[in-house]
Amino acid sequence: MDYIVSAPGKAILHGEHAVVHGKVALAVSLNLRTYLRLKTTTTGKVCINLPNIDTFLSWDLSELNQLIPCSRGMREEVKRLDAELVRRLREFVGITNGNLDTCNMATLAFLYIYLSVFGSGKLPSLTVSVWSELPTGAGLGSSAAYSVCLAAALLCASGVIPSPLKEWDHTARWCQEDLELINSWAFQGEMIIHGNPSGVDNAVGTWGGMLRFLAGKIIPLSRVPLLRILLTNTKIPRSTKVLVARVKDKINKFPSVMTPVLDSVDAISCTCEKVLSEMTCEPITGEHYNILEELIDINQHHLNVMGVGHPALDTLCRVTMERGLHSKLTGAGGGGCGITLLRPETDSSVVRSTVQDLRDCGFDCWETSIGGPGVQQHSPLSVKEEVLEILNRY
Amino acid sequence: MDYIVSAPGKAILHGEHAVVHGKVALAVSLNLRTYLRLKTTTTGKVCINLPNIDTFLSWDLSELNQLIPCSRGMREEVKRLDAELVRRLREFVGITNGNLDTCNMATLAFLYIYLSVFGSGKLPSLTVSVWSELPTGAGLGSSAAYSVCLAAALLCASGVIPSPLKEWDHTARWCQEDLELINSWAFQGEMIIHGNPSGVDNAVGTWGGMLRFLAGKIIPLSRVPLLRILLTNTKIPRSTKVLVARVKDKINKFPSVMTPVLDSVDAISCTCEKVLSEMTCEPITGEHYNILEELIDINQHHLNVMGVGHPALDTLCRVTMERGLHSKLTGAGGGGCGITLLRPETDSSVVRSTVQDLRDCGFDCWETSIGGPGVQQHSPLSVKEEVLEILNRY
Repeated sequence: MDYIVSAPGKAILHGEHAVVHGKVALAVSLNLRTYLRLKTTTTGKVCINLPNIDTFLSWDLSELNQLIPCSRGMREEVKRLDAELVRRLREFVGITNGNLDTCNMATLAFLYIYLSVFGSGKLPSLTVSVWSELPTGAGLGSSAAYSVCLAAALLCASGVIPSPLKEWDHTARWCQEDLELINSWAFQGEMIIHGNPSGVDNAVGTWGGMLRFLAGKIIPLSRVPLLRILLTNTKIPRSTKVLVARVKDKINKFPSVMTPVLDSVDAISCTCEKVLSEMTCEPITGEHYNILEELIDINQHHLNVMGVGHPALDTLCRVTMERGLHSKLTGAGGGGCGITLLRPETDSSVVRSTVQDLRDCGFDCWETSIGGPGVQQHSPLSVKEEVLEILNRY
Repeated sequence: MDYIVSAPGKAILHGEHAVVHGKVALAVSLNLRTYLRLKTTTTGKVCINLPNIDTFLSWDLSELNQLIPCSRGMREEVKRLDAELVRRLREFVGITNGNLDTCNMATLAFLYIYLSVFGSGKLPSLTVSVWSELPTGAGLGSSAAYSVCLAAALLCASGVIPSPLKEWDHTARWCQEDLELINSWAFQGEMIIHGNPSGVDNAVGTWGGMLRFLAGKIIPLSRVPLLRILLTNTKIPRSTKVLVARVKDKINKFPSVMTPVLDSVDAISCTCEKVLSEMTCEPITGEHYNILEELIDINQHHLNVMGVGHPALDTLCRVTMERGLHSKLTGAGGGGCGITLLRPETDSSVVRSTVQDLRDCGFDCWETSIGGPGVQQHSPLSVKEEVLEILNRY
């Protein structure tokens, strides 16, 4: 067996921070993807290769057999994390409390899903290689994209869900029921990595497109247009926790000033959702894009009002505005990443110059899109050559 | 008789634009002042010297006698403009419709108040010289400061109100009743110059300090602290009418997004008023200034959301922020002027460097204060030498 799957990252289009205070947020898939290749082998070993984080591990099946959970009804118990298994895996991986680096977390999540999915039968010998276009720790859902890929490939390899790819397909997606199972297992991975995830990131990685997130409820939106964007990573490190606390403090300090700002952000998310839905059922016009740009600008000002701006993000907005492009931070703010909307008519030379300008500011910058598909299976032909080359290397 | 009077300019501290939509605005006196010297003469001439706008005019009393309104009960009819007198003065000054430049408007306002105040008796021979620290046409109430000075000096010279300056005083102010009369006549001048003024500018010029302006009602606030500021004129020309229309269009386009923003601005004005009033009755702390700075930043973002920002104003905010100082536009926006709050502990070297930075951007910049006194009479000793020198030149 040889499967290649991919899952997208996530960006918050509107409503970051406001969502903490009971307002709507719109999460969209970000077409910087994580690719995973799973090959069954006859080596009697399980290998995982994560070149992004310089992690190359291998275990004998005999070692792993000792970790198998006693008895698990798979489909039924998928909502609850097997705390005993996690404990044993932590010990096995050598995580004494504290040492929670990306490498350990990724290993834990892999072993947990692998053992849970295959634990009721014979453990297979296989090699998993992962390559991600997403920067890690930038709030772009890289861990969720990884967990979604793991869940999809391992569930497929175990026969719990079918491989959707037909001989003549380049890419294929699973049916709703299978996607729900993938999402549930990916959420387990996210719980191992993040402790208390919202579930938005794995939902976006699974379903793609756009999700409405309100008071803990996640509603995938039926259809959204694919929007070209630039994704910029200012590489300014920040703590989401500190930023969330800062917004809360500001609301407590100036309730009469800040409460209406949250209401306005809520209205921005709702207006944006409406415009995007119109764009899928009527001819797309320049005015649709004008509105999307205005909403981006307004929200960026509101995020500054909330105190989660940063001079690097101001620079992003100014540099892109000089070329007529509109940007906002995405996610926690205080640095981190921003998105810049590109119009359909934006010339590729303008895009190239803007990307160069932003790189000259010391930022990482990618041209990509939002609103694209969630997890999918690929034929090798449909995978970009440079990604395939990396996946084949191991 | 020889009187020197001065009146301050005006800045909007918070609530510009929102006030058009029924929200509170705070107008404050700006201590860039207009100075007026009135000397009675024996030349049989009335002379007015306005060196700021290169206007030096002189009339024989015999000419002016022919313009005297037939019969006017002064104190009583002060609310209504004498349309017939305005018509005759326009003809006399040579304003055929259209030619409404600053020079003509200033002349009209002077002659109207002069003839109205003295018309019931014998017209006196006098020379009026005016020098203003305020740029004209920058939304800083320069015409109102001029009208207030005219009203105060001419009412004083006519004996309708007393000269408040005692021998040993440097400066002196009038009692409430006299200030109300000055304000009424200044409003007449404003009507001649602007057609349909709000009355805020002349009220600030008369009372100084801070005024709360809501739904056409103007309430002078009892006590406010004097705040050091920088006033910056970006010199970007703009049309208040166009900017007001732009805000209205945006509210109509995104009512659910924009209405809360106006509510937030309203809350900013009310919070600011409360903090300023606290500063007059309890020890002033750094936290008072922190709050004033935060409110300035938030409102500046809201004004950008309303669409009345400008890259030059962004530059002002960025350049001052680099020195830890907080700025917002004041008035109509779209260019025009901005204010930068200085803290009591802000070092004069920081102020000097900031002023230089802003001048290097091509802006005009003055260190001044807001919340200072309204119209006052001066002894020559209390007038800055350079101003006195100009007033004495004519």
